[in-house]
Amino acid sequence: MEKPLILITNDDGITAPGIRELINIMNEIGEVYVIAPDKPQSGMGHAITINSTLRVEKIALDQGPQQEWACSGTPVDCVKIAINQILPKKPDLCVSGINHGSNSSINVIYSGTMSAAIEGGIEGIPSIGFSLCDYSFNANFKAAKKYIKSITENVITHKLPEGVVLNVNIPKADEKQLKGIKICRQANALWEEEFDKRIDPKGKTYYWLTGKWSNLDKGDDTDEWALTHNYISIVPVRFDMTAFHFLEKIKQWNLNL
Amino acid sequence: MEKPLILITNDDGITAPGIRELINIMNEIGEVYVIAPDKPQSGMGHAITINSTLRVEKIALDQGPQQEWACSGTPVDCVKIAINQILPKKPDLCVSGINHGSNSSINVIYSGTMSAAIEGGIEGIPSIGFSLCDYSFNANFKAAKKYIKSITENVITHKLPEGVVLNVNIPKADEKQLKGIKICRQANALWEEEFDKRIDPKGKTYYWLTGKWSNLDKGDDTDEWALTHNYISIVPVRFDMTAFHFLEKIKQWNLNL
Repeated sequence: MEKPLILITNDDGITAPGIRELINIMNEIGEVYVIAPDKPQSGMGHAITINSTLRVEKIALDQGPQQEWACSGTPVDCVKIAINQILPKKPDLCVSGINHGSNSSINVIYSGTMSAAIEGGIEGIPSIGFSLCDYSFNANFKAAKKYIKSITENVITHKLPEGVVLNVNIPKADEKQLKGIKICRQANALWEEEFDKRIDPKGKTYYWLTGKWSNLDKGDDTDEWALTHNYISIVPVRFDMTAFHFLEKIKQWNLNL
Repeated sequence: MEKPLILITNDDGITAPGIRELINIMNEIGEVYVIAPDKPQSGMGHAITINSTLRVEKIALDQGPQQEWACSGTPVDCVKIAINQILPKKPDLCVSGINHGSNSSINVIYSGTMSAAIEGGIEGIPSIGFSLCDYSFNANFKAAKKYIKSITENVITHKLPEGVVLNVNIPKADEKQLKGIKICRQANALWEEEFDKRIDPKGKTYYWLTGKWSNLDKGDDTDEWALTHNYISIVPVRFDMTAFHFLEKIKQWNLNL
């Protein structure tokens, strides 16, 4: 059987330890093409570059069979240009990450890592975003390795339904602590924003956006629950965002004049 | 009864004709605070500014009772800083737009206008994104005015369920052509990307991202259908992106090692 063609990207940038680890894992599974941002792009959400130019440069960062390109754009740009300009054919799989930091719950919507996976899904490619709940540059990805491999092989075997991608989050835990995998729903949580207000050297005000994570969800079937209990969470994510449960109700509003 | 406090933002920037029109309409309904980007931010998706500073400047662009601030950040930043630093209290409503160009179907995920409305929803504020299917700077917003007012008043009266915001798209049509409002689901459509490959003056390659809109959805209950038939489309949008229909199936995968 031919090896699957795997596209790898991320939002922390092509030199981040998380994507280097993901490349090592995917080299064991398929033929790997890396097209990732040339600089960190965290918090970029589903941004695309429409009023500026894009550049792509072939590079060789580590030894290995993978082929690599650094792209000046966002994670979503990387997926688009990979498919349209770089890959020899449509990939069999798109994996994004391993993100340094959690993309659980509502983070799915702010995350460049998950947006790249969602873009893969929009293009009809089975896609997975992987994140480790550890922001540290020296995060330890070791305990997660066999699970990432197993999830990936399952996606290759079973495929994913149209319109669905996977959001995989891995707790900060060592091999002994890690309890396995839970299939979850997205927790109802949010960032309660806080702004650090400062004065610049010219006397003008500026702000740093910060925030406090707030989990409003008491359920034990959520990704937040799984992660705090040392399980890897998998949330299947759909990008048809229609609130189907509200369609009939809003049709009863008195809207037409 | 006290007038509702209305937060207005957009992604085309605070000087765009679309937001000026929306300010005029909302001045008839409530007490208006405008916090919008100081420059165009189209295609920014749900991007937030986490590695850089933010600035907000009080300005007065047009006469009228509204109060206005220009913000250096993305549309989502605008909503966050408005709520946390500028508004006297949590707003009763957040409206975003009127966007110059369609945000129907999958555009909901790329759009800064819709991301601002979704951020309002995440923060528990009834929120609506308005877009006109006309990219022109001189687009005619006149025919849409009474519908925008009616939709807004309905949202104030009925509120919206937790986790739901509205994506309203208005076809390019005059008052006679405009047929009314349809409640719709998000069409299954996508941008088939194309890249315009060019050579810079130094001989190096660069790209412009462009794309061809491709509607794969034959349904007559979609926003795409409504818009091409001269109806205003309203899609209720949810930001719990869990693919609930796939949860039971994926639980049967052989994932735990």
